[in-house]
Amino acid sequence: MKIFLIGSGNVATQLGKAFQRCGHEIVFVYSRNISRASKLAKELKAGFGNNLNAVSDFNADVYMIAVKDDAIAEVVKKMPGLKNNLVIHTSGATDISILKKKFKNCGVLWQVQTIKARTQVNFRKVPLVIEASNSSSEKKLKRLATDLSRKVYLLNSHQRRILHLGAVWVNNFPNHLYFLSESLLKKNNLPFELFGPLILSTTESGMKNPMASQTGPAKRNDKKTMNAHLKLLPDKNYKALYKQISNSIVKLYNK
Amino acid sequence: MKIFLIGSGNVATQLGKAFQRCGHEIVFVYSRNISRASKLAKELKAGFGNNLNAVSDFNADVYMIAVKDDAIAEVVKKMPGLKNNLVIHTSGATDISILKKKFKNCGVLWQVQTIKARTQVNFRKVPLVIEASNSSSEKKLKRLATDLSRKVYLLNSHQRRILHLGAVWVNNFPNHLYFLSESLLKKNNLPFELFGPLILSTTESGMKNPMASQTGPAKRNDKKTMNAHLKLLPDKNYKALYKQISNSIVKLYNK
Repeated sequence: MKIFLIGSGNVATQLGKAFQRCGHEIVFVYSRNISRASKLAKELKAGFGNNLNAVSDFNADVYMIAVKDDAIAEVVKKMPGLKNNLVIHTSGATDISILKKKFKNCGVLWQVQTIKARTQVNFRKVPLVIEASNSSSEKKLKRLATDLSRKVYLLNSHQRRILHLGAVWVNNFPNHLYFLSESLLKKNNLPFELFGPLILSTTESGMKNPMASQTGPAKRNDKKTMNAHLKLLPDKNYKALYKQISNSIVKLYNK
Repeated sequence: MKIFLIGSGNVATQLGKAFQRCGHEIVFVYSRNISRASKLAKELKAGFGNNLNAVSDFNADVYMIAVKDDAIAEVVKKMPGLKNNLVIHTSGATDISILKKKFKNCGVLWQVQTIKARTQVNFRKVPLVIEASNSSSEKKLKRLATDLSRKVYLLNSHQRRILHLGAVWVNNFPNHLYFLSESLLKKNNLPFELFGPLILSTTESGMKNPMASQTGPAKRNDKKTMNAHLKLLPDKNYKALYKQISNSIVKLYNK
């Protein structure tokens, strides 16, 4: 298929390259930042520009909006109308309705994975979540998605929102707890690498069955250890988090 | 070395087997529960019993107390005195002083890893933290520990306590967040396995550099998304945790 790419960030870059690798053609790269558009377009052997009127110059199969969430509305507004072409965005947190207002054939393709600029993403193993405005768009989008990944899920906007929220709890939040643990160790001249094997085994069992994998003082409602821990923590923020998370565990396992 | 094993739980079992695999001899297994003592002793080809007076019958090189934290004091009390033999416990949260009161040559050997009953642990990669009451005990304990693992760290009781506390933040707490995420998905008929690749990549980058790996709405102080998330969460506990952890991230990245 011919793909018109809108955006030049990490997601646009990785999706553009990945679609090209599996035989699709990137015809144009749009970006507000012309030098970034030019750079990515060269890699993809595509045209480029910083004016969305170019949308009308190509009869692309798919117009892929891969920009920051809060820039999607502005892009949609500036895009010329399209008759039968498919327009999709790639945001986990954004409803399909943002496209439906303007485009009959539209959809969403969201990769459930953190996308970085430099590391090449192997999309075969990345779950892709799709949604479309009608059955012909769904068919087209599903074909495109299955070219990329073995794991394609058809979900509606509400389910995708829940998934996006659930991802915060397995990605953003645990990462912050790693940071707090690392800081605690640093203050006491202890190397965080010491936790490598523990983190890996926690992840491995927790991602399969977190209810059964729980261990620690809160699970046992071991008040003595929890109080000792609270005394060792360096500030209010640590103590408040420790209490809140521990209480949640205590409640779950000590009904 | 000749090892007298006190305890028959997961840690006693795994350490007993591991020390035997690298050429040490388990001479006796003590447990309050005689049938568990007998079962483990058979596997280790050792004597067994439920009376701590047996301590005096063996001139073992090492007496290894691998029981629950709150049972250590009672075991120490019931053990006959020893002159030159090394007595160690295996608790991350317990001070060496619990042994020092009674035994001149004593120490601590703590594995920084969750130990399960059935899965055989490969101790070569498990960090071992040791502490001893004097240099001859330290030398002996270090020899024993390096037989088991390539990563042996000599730390004092305060450092070990900090490490034990830090482990809660990379193990117990993230696991509970996995559980909360899984529950959220279940309520909406979404499979938790969808998060497999995301969890793995989060862990991989977060364990190396959590400060740089942070992503998500709280890092960007994106109030719109955070408020939308709060509305989607099913109860007070979810909302309180979401706020507390997000605020901690907001404060860190938006000074």
